[in-house]
Amino acid sequence: MDEIEKRLLELVPKNMAERGMITLDALLAPIKDILNRRRFPDAPLLEMQIEWMLQLLSSLDSDKDPKAIRVGEREARVATPLVSRLAAGFNHGVGRSGHVTAPQPKAVGASLMQQICNAMVTDAIRRLGLPNIRHGLVLPLSTGMSIGLSLAALRRELGVRTVLYPRVDHKSPLRGVALTGIEIKPMPTILEGDAVRADMDAIEKTIKNTRDASVIATTTFFPPRESDPVKDIARLCEDHQVPLVINNAYGVQSESVMKSIRSAIDAGRVDIVVQSTDKNFLTPVGGSIVVAPKPETIEQVAETYAGRASAAPVVQLLASLTAIGMKRYQELRAEQKKNRQLLGALLQETAEKVGQRLLDVENAVSCAMTIDGMNAHEIGARLYNERVTGPRAVSQGEYGSCIDDYPHSYVVMNAAIGASQWDVERAIEKLFKVVAGL
Amino acid sequence: MDEIEKRLLELVPKNMAERGMITLDALLAPIKDILNRRRFPDAPLLEMQIEWMLQLLSSLDSDKDPKAIRVGEREARVATPLVSRLAAGFNHGVGRSGHVTAPQPKAVGASLMQQICNAMVTDAIRRLGLPNIRHGLVLPLSTGMSIGLSLAALRRELGVRTVLYPRVDHKSPLRGVALTGIEIKPMPTILEGDAVRADMDAIEKTIKNTRDASVIATTTFFPPRESDPVKDIARLCEDHQVPLVINNAYGVQSESVMKSIRSAIDAGRVDIVVQSTDKNFLTPVGGSIVVAPKPETIEQVAETYAGRASAAPVVQLLASLTAIGMKRYQELRAEQKKNRQLLGALLQETAEKVGQRLLDVENAVSCAMTIDGMNAHEIGARLYNERVTGPRAVSQGEYGSCIDDYPHSYVVMNAAIGASQWDVERAIEKLFKVVAGL
Amino acid sequence: MDEIEKRLLELVPKNMAERGMITLDALLAPIKDILNRRRFPDAPLLEMQIEWMLQLLSSLDSDKDPKAIRVGEREARVATPLVSRLAAGFNHGVGRSGHVTAPQPKAVGASLMQQICNAMVTDAIRRLGLPNIRHGLVLPLSTGMSIGLSLAALRRELGVRTVLYPRVDHKSPLRGVALTGIEIKPMPTILEGDAVRADMDAIEKTIKNTRDASVIATTTFFPPRESDPVKDIARLCEDHQVPLVINNAYGVQSESVMKSIRSAIDAGRVDIVVQSTDKNFLTPVGGSIVVAPKPETIEQVAETYAGRASAAPVVQLLASLTAIGMKRYQELRAEQKKNRQLLGALLQETAEKVGQRLLDVENAVSCAMTIDGMNAHEIGARLYNERVTGPRAVSQGEYGSCIDDYPHSYVVMNAAIGASQWDVERAIEKLFKVVAGL
Amino acid sequence: MDEIEKRLLELVPKNMAERGMITLDALLAPIKDILNRRRFPDAPLLEMQIEWMLQLLSSLDSDKDPKAIRVGEREARVATPLVSRLAAGFNHGVGRSGHVTAPQPKAVGASLMQQICNAMVTDAIRRLGLPNIRHGLVLPLSTGMSIGLSLAALRRELGVRTVLYPRVDHKSPLRGVALTGIEIKPMPTILEGDAVRADMDAIEKTIKNTRDASVIATTTFFPPRESDPVKDIARLCEDHQVPLVINNAYGVQSESVMKSIRSAIDAGRVDIVVQSTDKNFLTPVGGSIVVAPKPETIEQVAETYAGRASAAPVVQLLASLTAIGMKRYQELRAEQKKNRQLLGALLQETAEKVGQRLLDVENAVSCAMTIDGMNAHEIGARLYNERVTGPRAVSQGEYGSCIDDYPHSYVVMNAAIGASQWDVERAIEKLFKVVAGL
Repeated sequence: MDEIEKRLLELVPKNMAERGMITLDALLAPIKDILNRRRFPDAPLLEMQIEWMLQLLSSLDSDKDPKAIRVGEREARVATPLVSRLAAGFNHGVGRSGHVTAPQPKAVGASLMQQICNAMVTDAIRRLGLPNIRHGLVLPLSTGMSIGLSLAALRRELGVRTVLYPRVDHKSPLRGVALTGIEIKPMPTILEGDAVRADMDAIEKTIKNTRDASVIATTTFFPPRESDPVKDIARLCEDHQVPLVINNAYGVQSESVMKSIRSAIDAGRVDIVVQSTDKNFLTPVGGSIVVAPKPETIEQVAETYAGRASAAPVVQLLASLTAIGMKRYQELRAEQKKNRQLLGALLQETAEKVGQRLLDVENAVSCAMTIDGMNAHEIGARLYNERVTGPRAVSQGEYGSCIDDYPHSYVVMNAAIGASQWDVERAIEKLFKVVAGL
Repeated sequence: MDEIEKRLLELVPKNMAERGMITLDALLAPIKDILNRRRFPDAPLLEMQIEWMLQLLSSLDSDKDPKAIRVGEREARVATPLVSRLAAGFNHGVGRSGHVTAPQPKAVGASLMQQICNAMVTDAIRRLGLPNIRHGLVLPLSTGMSIGLSLAALRRELGVRTVLYPRVDHKSPLRGVALTGIEIKPMPTILEGDAVRADMDAIEKTIKNTRDASVIATTTFFPPRESDPVKDIARLCEDHQVPLVINNAYGVQSESVMKSIRSAIDAGRVDIVVQSTDKNFLTPVGGSIVVAPKPETIEQVAETYAGRASAAPVVQLLASLTAIGMKRYQELRAEQKKNRQLLGALLQETAEKVGQRLLDVENAVSCAMTIDGMNAHEIGARLYNERVTGPRAVSQGEYGSCIDDYPHSYVVMNAAIGASQWDVERAIEKLFKVVAGL
Repeated sequence: MDEIEKRLLELVPKNMAERGMITLDALLAPIKDILNRRRFPDAPLLEMQIEWMLQLLSSLDSDKDPKAIRVGEREARVATPLVSRLAAGFNHGVGRSGHVTAPQPKAVGASLMQQICNAMVTDAIRRLGLPNIRHGLVLPLSTGMSIGLSLAALRRELGVRTVLYPRVDHKSPLRGVALTGIEIKPMPTILEGDAVRADMDAIEKTIKNTRDASVIATTTFFPPRESDPVKDIARLCEDHQVPLVINNAYGVQSESVMKSIRSAIDAGRVDIVVQSTDKNFLTPVGGSIVVAPKPETIEQVAETYAGRASAAPVVQLLASLTAIGMKRYQELRAEQKKNRQLLGALLQETAEKVGQRLLDVENAVSCAMTIDGMNAHEIGARLYNERVTGPRAVSQGEYGSCIDDYPHSYVVMNAAIGASQWDVERAIEKLFKVVAGL
Repeated sequence: MDEIEKRLLELVPKNMAERGMITLDALLAPIKDILNRRRFPDAPLLEMQIEWMLQLLSSLDSDKDPKAIRVGEREARVATPLVSRLAAGFNHGVGRSGHVTAPQPKAVGASLMQQICNAMVTDAIRRLGLPNIRHGLVLPLSTGMSIGLSLAALRRELGVRTVLYPRVDHKSPLRGVALTGIEIKPMPTILEGDAVRADMDAIEKTIKNTRDASVIATTTFFPPRESDPVKDIARLCEDHQVPLVINNAYGVQSESVMKSIRSAIDAGRVDIVVQSTDKNFLTPVGGSIVVAPKPETIEQVAETYAGRASAAPVVQLLASLTAIGMKRYQELRAEQKKNRQLLGALLQETAEKVGQRLLDVENAVSCAMTIDGMNAHEIGARLYNERVTGPRAVSQGEYGSCIDDYPHSYVVMNAAIGASQWDVERAIEKLFKVVAGL
């Protein structure tokens, strides 16, 4: 930069040179701020600032050194500049063999980038509702895989052998646990009105009778399933000294979900909270965020990933957080809330028109209408053909309701963060068209 | 395309329009060929052709549909176009919940892209030495993690509980297995001359006495460790009906390593062969390739990953394969072989000058010189400061030699695929400078 | 595309394949529409659609043909892919030797791109207020140079030797005419109240007494200069059979300016209207748009440029028009109007506070406040240092007022298209700070 | 940068931080060198270094200042980030109203970029054969337009009214002069053997009898036209105090052409030498380079362009020069020479096979074979369809031979800089196929 300034002063009039440096400084200021403070920025950065930041960081990695002499078996050599661009230049990935957040001597820039991202997302999650978590980590893995890694870390450190899992009809977390070989004890759910809820009595009973137990609680799923009462579960875990992992897949977007987790941490024992990057922070699919009230827990999870990992999910999250910023995130949250209300109201209207009704289930993101007596699969297929993506149509008694013999068929729609009023209104129109047209 | 042609004919003279279409067709021909045949191309594609192919594919995903009505909780919404560019547009990632290669209805293009990549890399590996493998899969995970997933799949399908692992001083595979909870029985190594080799007698004895066993064999590591005799191990596994996973981390670059695996498959039992994307195919770090003689094995591994995954390692491998092509890969292999010979010769010379000697160890990529009586750590640190990346300096008896009490200190260097003669020559110069300067 | 569809049907379930094609078609539909109709689109295209359109077009040029055999002295060979990217792939530029819009046999795509851009901008200008122009052309030249080219074309075709130019204190058009060697007869201006206006009597007198005359009229400049009465001048030109070129530098943004030109064309003789690309259509600096009521005039101007030209200004305009669209342009115009009113109101307030007054001059974009008794240069310098760009501070009697001995010092600010309310409010704050601080 | 270093030291181990800074410094060193010395670099820069340099420079322009308050009518506002990328961020273009190289206060970075480019290309041309030129300028205009601007500058400064132009059958320079209104006196050519040459007697006679004359001499054209004897013409111009402009369109690639111009400057009067950017330096079409022995001449030409101009041709040249470097340029020149010899030899062979002969004409780039008795137009059309671009087939007596009644039909091919041996060999094959197939 000093070179630039010196040159400017020789080549253009002094006041112009000074003006140029002011512009450059103003442009770099938020980048420096991020490097310095590693906080979730209030205001978003411009695309060019983000690109510049990434370029600066990736330029610290040894594969960029034109004078490096490379005699390792793995030196981040890439076939063409295009391939490097596809990785935003972070060709060394992140991590070291056996520790996914350890500084990598060949990849100083990637190491720094990862630290910044981890610190920034931790700051974001703290400010978005969990001030009582202390440390966080982005894993280039699905939420399900990260739950698996979390449990494997808890096994290594605390001797966990079994996990109690209040039933959620979702394959991914189950497979994540299956990978670890830890025994899953499925906990039953109960039907209360329309809602399907965790059976707290069963959990309490089982926890007492299980050695080396742990628990997975779930905050976000589709109606009729409701969030698990994480505060109660956390207390139970505290009482029985049992580790608790919360699957908070897309709960960061919801103030109420975050509030429930916050009070769970305050009131009881929560070891780890796992959430998706894409479902909460508008990134491409592929990463998850693990946060914990105790810093050492995160270290332990980090040591559970075997080898170096793709930098892509980390870079994408860093870019996304930086492009959104706290202020806009709060606006997005407010829009989500408004759209969720709209979705409820419109679905109610539609239900009335077609002789169905809304399921009376508490859910911050999703909403369901019965389609009793109708062909759920047909409705699903027709909505797909109408270019409505993401609704779920479930037949009475089918897998998906998180309980055997759920008494209704129903269709679920979401008003998730990033969705627009247009989406909600059009989806309802199409639903009406489809349902009325059957 | 027909639109374009029609327009051209209206707007420019006929022969010009035809000429334009010929150019466009010639440009698209290799892309069509890849879509059609999904083979490792002989000739490389141009950067712009690769970009076009990726753009075409990612444009099939529903998040690109301007008329899609999105009411799911996960709709590949991204914060800004920059974030999408960082993912080459594959914002939906790859896979479905619970099956990482299942076609994803919202991500038709990503599904296709992944299938093409898997087919192409399988073709590449078949033509590069393993014609007897049938199916392959790119996982967005490190080699160590993929070994873990492979074993977890073998546990689920075949009841594996224990794995025999001839000692290699490398943390990543160990952690990969640890994640699964499968018991590791470390198999001892023996010293024969300078070389450290798997103790076949110990393996044979243990395999007989172990229920639900499996074996990991390793083809590529640093001297003094030599490759495991995979053919013999495969025969043993065949005889005892024990699954075998081969960790072929960077063996694709070597004809001789591939030949040994090929004969292992022919002569005995090999269930899975795992290799790194970056170490063999000049991609950024973050992926691995799992291939198997039986197609169903790959399906089983695919079902072991929990949830959707980042598309980045898959896209990067596809781009890299397409940018290299078979012909150039063969040239790269020939260069690797030549550089390996040069490395041996120059290291020999240097050893003689400084009163040391070469370790007499067979290794297709690496070569080691003793540094007995010298401070290995000091040598390592000085080489790092001389901007030599990737050499390993190991003290007598230290972790890294894959045996207790290895009698030499030594320094290892690699002539891996993609390294240049310049790297080898400069590294030797620096090594001499450092060693002579102690 | 057919290939893609075929492949999809083989590789993914039928309904998914169909869904993918629907997305792709929806994405391509606006591109096809532009190729077909070459109109200014109502709705903007997405960045990725624009990039795709440009890539498709540039891929028709012969330098992209991998089988082309190139034995010309000029074959659009470029040093590296980066250099090609800097030209969006249009390495052949636009035009042929001696005709800047003639189809170039080696550059079918660039030829098509240029035709689309010319047609689209002509459509835009017609719909933005000049339905009576028939043909248009983007020149990769400044407005001043394009005025020069226009006059040179009028000399060649109609024998123009002299141009009457009602005084505007702007160097660029003067230099553009000077380049052609055509004699400039500066026409005086007169002071009416605060406003400086063209002296119509002088023009009328001179036009009668000048052989082979032509006229340049100006619609947009800074106060105290007002727009020339183009309708009156056009009538005069009609009466005396004298060609008229209108310098409409940044008038497209203003409905009232466009209305005056429209009525000038209807009521009298207008040969050519020249406008800037960047000042009206938010492109980078470097192009201008020449439109004319008679198609042949545009042909004649096109034949006046010598050789092939950079495609950049044409590509940039095409991208910009496509990224804005008619609807958004109308919004931008409405914002401009509102900001102009705000600027007037705030400047009025400020003037009152500091004992100055607004100049009573009609101007659709700019507004001026007297700074009598103050040091105009000091004010200009301080505003520059306050990071206010674009204001003009002129001392009494100085060049810039378009008349000798203008009786006021004043400062001018603009509320041009693309400026924001923030700009206007901050500029006024800073102006007050500077003026009050003197 | 200091920030980065400080951060690194806090976040990663000290030796890693230092290593990262070494990489960054090594990467930035050639960029700093270019900013400091503004010379044609010996070694090329990497793509990422060039992109970084451009980004750094464009970030000095006021439109990048997030705190700039913009109240001008022209503030480099752009529709979308894509549009800015299409201009590499130089949205303000280059130059000021009335001086295309004057520093633009709003565009400090573009001003600097332009100065660097002008200095670098001047250095390149000096080192590539014209050490006796002193100053140079890139104009975003065709060679023909630049010749026009040059003459217009000479008219303004020295009173030139007429230009003597030894006949070359090329429209572009003629139109460039026509634009200025300067009278063209075409000078005849004479036939000597096969060659068409300038008639020096006619020039000498006319120069004596013409007031306010100037001369355009041409160094590069197609056979049968030979280069003008620029040394003799320069002496004549010196003797008669007549300005000389040399059209050196694609002569920089040829040592012999450059030598002839060098001796012309030494021996006589040369005012201006104009050359193409794309034909000599592998850039996209759209720029030309004006160099002169006297610095003030370049200033005068710069003042002749009216207004600001597109930065694209300047940026593209800067990128191209930086991506090639002196060493590679010399290799390219050597390849060109070899390919030209090959072209001659193969064309000779072909001529013998089909009963024609080579035209005996001296030309550093092109070579021609007679096609007497054949249909030249048919040959041209067939070569076009065979994807041979750039050959010229001319019928006996037709426009193109630069003389009336040239006695042969012939076909011309070029071995220009950047063409490959493959091009030459394939073109000859196709030519034989076409000619033999008639």
